[in-house]
Amino acid sequence: MRVAFQGELGAYSEAAVLEHFGADTTPIPCEAFDDVFAAVTTGSSDYGMVPIENSLAGSIHRNYDLLLKNNLSVVGEHYLYVNHTLIGLPGARLEDIRRVISHPQALAQCEGYLHSLSGVKIESVYDTAGSVKMVKQMGDQTVAAIASRRAADLYGMQALADRIQDNPENLTRFLIISPQPGEPGEDAKTSIVFSLKNAPGALFKAMSVFALRDIDLTKIESRPLTQKPFEYFFYIDFAGSILEPVAAKALAHLEEYALFLRVFGSYPRHRYT
Amino acid sequence: MRVAFQGELGAYSEAAVLEHFGADTTPIPCEAFDDVFAAVTTGSSDYGMVPIENSLAGSIHRNYDLLLKNNLSVVGEHYLYVNHTLIGLPGARLEDIRRVISHPQALAQCEGYLHSLSGVKIESVYDTAGSVKMVKQMGDQTVAAIASRRAADLYGMQALADRIQDNPENLTRFLIISPQPGEPGEDAKTSIVFSLKNAPGALFKAMSVFALRDIDLTKIESRPLTQKPFEYFFYIDFAGSILEPVAAKALAHLEEYALFLRVFGSYPRHRYT
Repeated sequence: MRVAFQGELGAYSEAAVLEHFGADTTPIPCEAFDDVFAAVTTGSSDYGMVPIENSLAGSIHRNYDLLLKNNLSVVGEHYLYVNHTLIGLPGARLEDIRRVISHPQALAQCEGYLHSLSGVKIESVYDTAGSVKMVKQMGDQTVAAIASRRAADLYGMQALADRIQDNPENLTRFLIISPQPGEPGEDAKTSIVFSLKNAPGALFKAMSVFALRDIDLTKIESRPLTQKPFEYFFYIDFAGSILEPVAAKALAHLEEYALFLRVFGSYPRHRYT
Repeated sequence: MRVAFQGELGAYSEAAVLEHFGADTTPIPCEAFDDVFAAVTTGSSDYGMVPIENSLAGSIHRNYDLLLKNNLSVVGEHYLYVNHTLIGLPGARLEDIRRVISHPQALAQCEGYLHSLSGVKIESVYDTAGSVKMVKQMGDQTVAAIASRRAADLYGMQALADRIQDNPENLTRFLIISPQPGEPGEDAKTSIVFSLKNAPGALFKAMSVFALRDIDLTKIESRPLTQKPFEYFFYIDFAGSILEPVAAKALAHLEEYALFLRVFGSYPRHRYT
């Protein structure tokens, strides 16, 4: 099974692929999110896995845009706890580190820890797994990278400190995309996007189609359309699958109000703890 | 008037400060978002201005967290179109550029344009305005930075190409924070956060307090609490001010359902076009 992801081998997205699909999966690294969607569309990969929201940084609208642009189905979700590891050459010692390199977002998430290492120079590079490769190439025992534990193993490098992020609750949700609809099973979620006429109470009416049927929402988000101020897309995830009559009826009801409605797919809910 | 922002002089946040407060404001650069809140709390700055959502990258939950942690009021909002400029030394020519440096997010937003410049090496550095300073220090006519037009002017550098981002609709919304509540005026918005008992239809009931009073919502977003899976914060912005009886009644009604409710503030609505 081939699963496309954005980033280099050892990236957090690759960790999500392996956690979700198991160790005998073939992760296919792609340069950009567009390339992940293209790989699944052309069949050069069986599935794709893209981050859709993060507990600190919010929704990744770019991937919602790509879901809208491409004709693929969401067939799964996966929550990954992002744990940053400080990584040096084999034999390197924490007390000798004088320079730390990584992606700016990883550096920012470890700011408190990095402050505690006195006299260390911080430099940003293009990505987390790439920073580990760079330290390896430099061969300098005083330089360390910040990336996933897996990146250390993959490049034969050494973990100097684990879970160094300031906020331990750094959770990223990924969606799995496929050319065909999946098998949502009993404990399912469905992701949709829709737009409404700009009228008072329009969203309340739209939400009534779920509330009147006791369907639980697990996500709701309005997204302003920048081209048309004061018009919105709404992203909703709800408990249940479109294969169940009650959800199918709710969506038929929603179509009475919606200017536009797209069902991304129904899929098994990932219960992280 | 002193207004704190995160970043260096010439950053996009500084552009938002000057657009909103006028050219005779004193922008106070701060290293981190926390420092912006601290500057306003201690009175070393009169106001602070922080990004809260972006049309491509979603809500900046970190700043919602800081709003919750600090006891400040939201007294205004400002929408800024982010336009990236390619910036070189005075006398530099576009056709001679061989290396472009900037913040990774700016580089990513200009990916298509950068591909069109053949044989150019791309390098990431810590921030946009900082990349302009670096090109100036290098004194190399073949290196360019990507930052705001204002950063070019500020550092005495030259704009080589304007509006080079791939998606022209790159809009960032900022909130203005102050120790005292502001003057919302006639055309106001109010920002709140609340949590609800985890029960079917809970959010629908909460929204009814606005719908039953014909109060328009301009934003709704659920945010899962990572520490407590399946519990949420809800961020809502609505049209109107807490000084108006109808909004005050809606909030009193919401308190009947909410486990927790915090009003960040009422402020004049910014009508961008």
